Amino acid sequence: MFFICLCVCVCYLLLNNPFCVFFQMYGRYTQELGVYAKEEAARLREEGGRRRSVTERSRSLELLEYDKGRCAKCRICTLRCQKFLISRVGEDWIFLILLGLLMALVSWVVDFAIAICLQAQKWMYGGLESNVFLQYLAWVTYPVVLITFSAGFTQILAPQAVGSGIPEMKTILRGVVLKEYLTFKTFVAKVIGLTCALGSGMPLGKEGPFVHIASLCAALLSKFMSLFGGIYENESRNIEMLAAACAVGVGCCFAAPIGGVLFSIEVTSTFFAVRNYWRGFFAATFSAFIFRVLAVWNKDEETITALFKTRFRLDFPFDLQELPAFAVIGIASGFGGALFVYLNRLIVQFIRKQKTINKFLMKKRLLYPALVTLLVSTLTFPPGFGQFMAGKLTQKESLVTLLDNRTWAKQGIAEGFDYIGNSQAWNHPQVNVFVTLVLFIVMKFWMSALATTIPVPCGAFMPVFVIGAAFGRLVGESMAAWFPDGIHSDGTIYPIVPGGYAVVGAAALSGAVTHTVSTAVIVFELTGQISHILPVMIAVILANAVAQSLQPSLYDSIIRIKKLPYLPELGWGHHEKYNIRVEDIMIRDVTYITLNCCYRDLHDVLLAGHLKTLALLESSESMILLGSIERAQLQALLSLQLGRPRRLEYLRDRATAEKKRLSMVSHPGSEDSSQRVNQEVRFQISTEESTFSPTPTPSMKPLKPALKRPSVVDRPTGIPMPTSPQDHSSSSLKNLFCVNPETEGLENKNVNTNIEGTATPEFRRPPKRVRISVVDDFDVDDDMTIREIAEWEENQLDEQVNFDNCKIDPAPFQLVERTSLHKTHTIFSLLGLDHAYVTSIGRLIGVVSLKELRKAIEGSVAVKGVKVRPPLSSFRDSGTSGTSSSNSENEATELHKLWDRHKSMSLPREHLASDSDEKSQ
Amino acid sequence: MFFICLCVCVCYLLLNNPFCVFFQMYGRYTQELGVYAKEEAARLREEGGRRRSVTERSRSLELLEYDKGRCAKCRICTLRCQKFLISRVGEDWIFLILLGLLMALVSWVVDFAIAICLQAQKWMYGGLESNVFLQYLAWVTYPVVLITFSAGFTQILAPQAVGSGIPEMKTILRGVVLKEYLTFKTFVAKVIGLTCALGSGMPLGKEGPFVHIASLCAALLSKFMSLFGGIYENESRNIEMLAAACAVGVGCCFAAPIGGVLFSIEVTSTFFAVRNYWRGFFAATFSAFIFRVLAVWNKDEETITALFKTRFRLDFPFDLQELPAFAVIGIASGFGGALFVYLNRLIVQFIRKQKTINKFLMKKRLLYPALVTLLVSTLTFPPGFGQFMAGKLTQKESLVTLLDNRTWAKQGIAEGFDYIGNSQAWNHPQVNVFVTLVLFIVMKFWMSALATTIPVPCGAFMPVFVIGAAFGRLVGESMAAWFPDGIHSDGTIYPIVPGGYAVVGAAALSGAVTHTVSTAVIVFELTGQISHILPVMIAVILANAVAQSLQPSLYDSIIRIKKLPYLPELGWGHHEKYNIRVEDIMIRDVTYITLNCCYRDLHDVLLAGHLKTLALLESSESMILLGSIERAQLQALLSLQLGRPRRLEYLRDRATAEKKRLSMVSHPGSEDSSQRVNQEVRFQISTEESTFSPTPTPSMKPLKPALKRPSVVDRPTGIPMPTSPQDHSSSSLKNLFCVNPETEGLENKNVNTNIEGTATPEFRRPPKRVRISVVDDFDVDDDMTIREIAEWEENQLDEQVNFDNCKIDPAPFQLVERTSLHKTHTIFSLLGLDHAYVTSIGRLIGVVSLKELRKAIEGSVAVKGVKVRPPLSSFRDSGTSGTSSSNSENEATELHKLWDRHKSMSLPREHLASDSDEKSQ
Repeated sequence: MFFICLCVCVCYLLLNNPFCVFFQMYGRYTQELGVYAKEEAARLREEGGRRRSVTERSRSLELLEYDKGRCAKCRICTLRCQKFLISRVGEDWIFLILLGLLMALVSWVVDFAIAICLQAQKWMYGGLESNVFLQYLAWVTYPVVLITFSAGFTQILAPQAVGSGIPEMKTILRGVVLKEYLTFKTFVAKVIGLTCALGSGMPLGKEGPFVHIASLCAALLSKFMSLFGGIYENESRNIEMLAAACAVGVGCCFAAPIGGVLFSIEVTSTFFAVRNYWRGFFAATFSAFIFRVLAVWNKDEETITALFKTRFRLDFPFDLQELPAFAVIGIASGFGGALFVYLNRLIVQFIRKQKTINKFLMKKRLLYPALVTLLVSTLTFPPGFGQFMAGKLTQKESLVTLLDNRTWAKQGIAEGFDYIGNSQAWNHPQVNVFVTLVLFIVMKFWMSALATTIPVPCGAFMPVFVIGAAFGRLVGESMAAWFPDGIHSDGTIYPIVPGGYAVVGAAALSGAVTHTVSTAVIVFELTGQISHILPVMIAVILANAVAQSLQPSLYDSIIRIKKLPYLPELGWGHHEKYNIRVEDIMIRDVTYITLNCCYRDLHDVLLAGHLKTLALLESSESMILLGSIERAQLQALLSLQLGRPRRLEYLRDRATAEKKRLSMVSHPGSEDSSQRVNQEVRFQISTEESTFSPTPTPSMKPLKPALKRPSVVDRPTGIPMPTSPQDHSSSSLKNLFCVNPETEGLENKNVNTNIEGTATPEFRRPPKRVRISVVDDFDVDDDMTIREIAEWEENQLDEQVNFDNCKIDPAPFQLVERTSLHKTHTIFSLLGLDHAYVTSIGRLIGVVSLKELRKAIEGSVAVKGVKVRPPLSSFRDSGTSGTSSSNSENEATELHKLWDRHKSMSLPREHLASDSDEKSQ
Repeated sequence: MFFICLCVCVCYLLLNNPFCVFFQMYGRYTQELGVYAKEEAARLREEGGRRRSVTERSRSLELLEYDKGRCAKCRICTLRCQKFLISRVGEDWIFLILLGLLMALVSWVVDFAIAICLQAQKWMYGGLESNVFLQYLAWVTYPVVLITFSAGFTQILAPQAVGSGIPEMKTILRGVVLKEYLTFKTFVAKVIGLTCALGSGMPLGKEGPFVHIASLCAALLSKFMSLFGGIYENESRNIEMLAAACAVGVGCCFAAPIGGVLFSIEVTSTFFAVRNYWRGFFAATFSAFIFRVLAVWNKDEETITALFKTRFRLDFPFDLQELPAFAVIGIASGFGGALFVYLNRLIVQFIRKQKTINKFLMKKRLLYPALVTLLVSTLTFPPGFGQFMAGKLTQKESLVTLLDNRTWAKQGIAEGFDYIGNSQAWNHPQVNVFVTLVLFIVMKFWMSALATTIPVPCGAFMPVFVIGAAFGRLVGESMAAWFPDGIHSDGTIYPIVPGGYAVVGAAALSGAVTHTVSTAVIVFELTGQISHILPVMIAVILANAVAQSLQPSLYDSIIRIKKLPYLPELGWGHHEKYNIRVEDIMIRDVTYITLNCCYRDLHDVLLAGHLKTLALLESSESMILLGSIERAQLQALLSLQLGRPRRLEYLRDRATAEKKRLSMVSHPGSEDSSQRVNQEVRFQISTEESTFSPTPTPSMKPLKPALKRPSVVDRPTGIPMPTSPQDHSSSSLKNLFCVNPETEGLENKNVNTNIEGTATPEFRRPPKRVRISVVDDFDVDDDMTIREIAEWEENQLDEQVNFDNCKIDPAPFQLVERTSLHKTHTIFSLLGLDHAYVTSIGRLIGVVSLKELRKAIEGSVAVKGVKVRPPLSSFRDSGTSGTSSSNSENEATELHKLWDRHKSMSLPREHLASDSDEKSQ
């Protein structure tokens, strides 16, 4: 029945779709060219036929139709259908529906598998009730085996699958390409690893990994769909689809479409395109829908409802006077969240630092997970310590009981609440329910922080959520015990609902750990009730305020631990960001190359700095920025200039010349050509030796090499060459071809995931695939001695660089020196920049890279920055009126320089004219 | 009691605030400089004292402390407190709390006043029950008076207050400054006008206006707070605060913080800074909280609950098989929403076109509102036609009854549902409830579309919401009549809940009209139930899909009607946007000025084009872009050059020279100076007349004027001057000083709000305040004849331009020609650009402005763009691999040009050297 709905949707969309203009214009060529039409046109054009071939083709189709009767008709029909389908495949919504469907299935299957795993453990535990030791063995061995398997499997197949995945997605969405993070291998490793890890019953979550899995799904689906052609290779589209996929990940994990979209935006984006909003909603809704429908089909549920449905009373959800208690939960959760992040980082760093432990663990990679699992599962063993902290319950069961709308600790009216079902686990005969809750919170807290450091695919959201719920329940039960008749004063008794407090606590703690507000929405969607909206919002905002002032979010913390390239947020209103200017943080000493530089300059520049891109200036006097060139391009240029092919060519030329010289002696008829050679050479030599050019200006450099070039005439005469400078060049040349990873920070850098350094992703910026094969042309040729090669190289280095075959970024991003840090941050994060040049009226005056920006935001160079610039620079024109005056002054002087320069460039001829003028007079 | 909560929050934030580092570092100067500290330092520095004065000052404070005992202590204490408070005032959260508080109060007061107005009408209507005619008069006169007053009041005080305000806010947040839109007058007019308009009982809403009111509040508060100094003058901060204010507006209107934030983002932003997210949430939550608390205090509510609380059953909200019905609601709502937008625009355009009507209405501005109100209120008169469409109910009452969880049209089990209270209005004795609903929907539909064109402050969200709810209820009642026992097949009977359908319909129709998905969230927050999340989401998404493919959103429609500057959205996945490049849409024929141009060139350029900014190039050969200059700046330069002061100065100089010449005759000792003058002049003349410079190249232009300059020596000799070219310059010069509004499109253009053209906002881009006083120096001086002036002007025009005092944008935004339309749109909307230069390796090759972009997106120039460019340009490199190859080719050739040019510039000297070389040999 619900398929009718689907059909209606699909049919409707097919017919009334905004982006479906293809079959309406089939045959004619309207102005709105669809992708398919364009591509088809391009293909046809490339085949030689121009526009008419489209009509020709359709004509031939028609002819075919009339020619061959039925069979041809069928074929035409098939062809058209095929075309139509292929053009359809390019649509966004098809992609999103497929993604949603796939992810819902994955989510459901994973959930199902986890449920079976957990049931198996319970069954084993139940079956061995006679012997406590055997029971313990079963209880402990089972998760250890699963976790070890998960860790091992992930390690072998794809180490990138380890951990949450949200930090990596954040980095990827910022425009950095993390190698191997979006491959099929990783997908398999993540799904299976996650299922095993969660099946073990450890306090781990599936949210973070599901964001990663959904992104993997989107990337793979994109690749798959690109087989049908179309738009799937467009990078900005892929980024948009990845953003939607993150929403799907959260959405299908919790059946929370709205919360999923918002959470994924908050966690992964800095700037969000509202244009992309509907994609997330569409896919996440569809995914959540299918996910819940699967549950209905499987008879788990009667109809589509929330995942952790609550049944609080609607008419009087809470009293106004309970709000302080909610605020307290919020603030405490804030501290708790910060503590959790700190603890998590502390554990990772502690184990990393302890070298002996580390060595041992690195050797036996699976020992650490096993040990942690052993510890945790021992402590939760129900007949043991676990009985005091509801250890028997799985994560899901705990959450359901914690969100229960009945009060556990009622002391007033209805005594002896019968703990039925799972709730009984909280009711220990000897111990108060409060003690159980406190123990649960404390134990689970450090257990979760510890468990999330295990190198398996796992998230921390769900454990934190449960701890938060427990904390909320604790406060709620206390309130219920304190005010047995409720707080309300007017007649009617409205008892306190501790379940509501649990909801608030869950949202607040998870919000504090992840630094998000949208956990509030997730909580509403999870529980299916929104009546506690104001307490939840207040608690979440307070928790965020506290946690953000103390610690980075868990994901940012992991980003820092893994040393992923990132740009920190500006945080809650740091005013000074508006007053710091780019000129305060930029590097003024920019390494650049000029249009007329020689290879030696290139060589020196490459040796000196380690920047990945170099500015290309018109000349060192004008400093006009023309573009930027990648280091790799320059290295390629240099290696081309000094490479073996060129040397061989030179040898060939030399041999030819030699032969010619010999032949010239025998054949005097060919004097012309040899004379030309001679003249040329003489001219070149005379340039340097003539005394008529008194000052060899730097602009004459390109002509210098002409002297030193071992021309066919000079060489045999044996002019001694200076050998000292060549040595360093030959030896140092090889250094050029490796980027220094320390200063570079982005290229080919191994990153350790989790404590064991198991995952070693290499990341790089998307469009620049840097791969240099170190050229080994320093070996001795058969025709040349080492000295000759060095000589030749030296000469080659003195030639002017030919940029013709070099890829140049013709419009690198430019900033003005007066751009505020706030705006710079905005632009960098908006456009995903790596660096930006600071220019003033076309002249390059500095460069700002992600590093400087990061430092400036984190405040570590604030003082240095302040010291470097002139004393009043940042106050000079904090007002708007001040800006214009001093600004125009600066510009005026600089413009003057340019103007003067231009004059001097254009004047010579005129000077000449007037000079000769005067002479003539 | 709840104040405790507030206190806790405030205290906490004061103590643990992330941005509160001031008093921790009081006295010492850490690296994290707060704003206040910086400003203080700046002030001190400007007063002459450097860093030490801070310590000096504190020392003096201490001395003061020891000196004067108690009284001084008090003073110091006060001083510190004052400082502390002032530094606090700069905090974001204080601002947001104040904003939230203020808006909650405004919202509550407005609601209260509206309720009183509506009660008064009912009371009048009830009191006159004896006489139907009197009853009718009272029923009709009351709203007519209120609406007329509202229209008149708004018209007189601030015509900008008319209408919704969301379109204007969208434009403002895009970076365009709309004059008078954020003033106190507008605030007063909007609040009072809105109260009266809604108090009349017309189908109008308060949401849109509240977005505007909140923004007004924020702007005024910002101004007020800037009295205490601080960051309040920063533009980017103000934009962020305005974005938060929009969220507050929706939040406090519906007590829907989350929905408010999301709705405001969707409606006003193109790109959203996640950094700004918390501001919206914080302020909107606080505002909604206070808004609901006020209701509790006023004893309207027992505790904080939703505004339109529903009580649907939780355990089985809907059956899976009902989903097609929900989908139908969604699709039908989509068509309905598009129809509503179309109808609204049609009415506006119809009345604008009918010139006779228009003239009449323009004369009697208040007639149109009165007529519309008369019509609408006549039709809703309860004893008349109104009885068939529940005309008795106010908007709020209708909504409450529509969301009722009881079924009205039950035919199966419980017959004769007793319509109690307001629900009775739907139960007409003669007419079926279905007929009532249909009539209600149809009548309200056109009434709402008509009413929203009245020039009073009003929104369309709420009426549309109610119509949607009625439509949903209609479908729900039909379903209930069709399946009296519900659809569920397994034993238990779950009857259908028509109220749930009403919720879905309300969300879907309002979503379709506004093109937003977040109406779903608003609906949950309004009803306090989230159980229908999946149906609502599905319906909203489908409605959006349909509506977006048919019509623009209501706000975009108004933007177009009002001709506000806007950039259309890219819409749902237009693939071709990825394949269109900037080179296809850019204007290649850029008007520019060069560094060495003369005033005549400036004059010609200003006459030729009407662009607001002009590109400044190094020279017309190199085409290197140095910056951009505003038209106004150039006009100022030109008027300075040709202005009266300069002419007077020239006359003075001439007089002095004349005097000197005379004195020279008498004093032969001063020969030196006169000789210098003579030499100079001769040199200048000889330049032109010499035959040694055979080709007068354009680069020599600057020297030309020297010949024509009427120097003190030449003039008296009476060389005849050509007079023909001067005439046109004198006459046309005045034209320069007015920007053509047609081609400019942004400057000084009157915009008609609503049909009567009452509001005439003038908008301009923020930083560029163009205001030119037309210089009247074409009158005849006493010392110069007209001809002399013309001559002098001509000479002045031939001088080279001195850009020294000119404000230049030193780094205008640059794009590469291969940037896709998609990315260009992104960048334009992200950075709020007006135009961008297209450069290639420093060389200017084109310009793209908002206009071209808009046209390209709307498809009107797509064909032209395709035709203009070379046949395969857009297919040339659709793949990533193709890009690099052809790209580098292009670059290579262009670079080659530059290189050649550079060679030719640097080579002359060398050529010279070699030339002389050869000579010497």
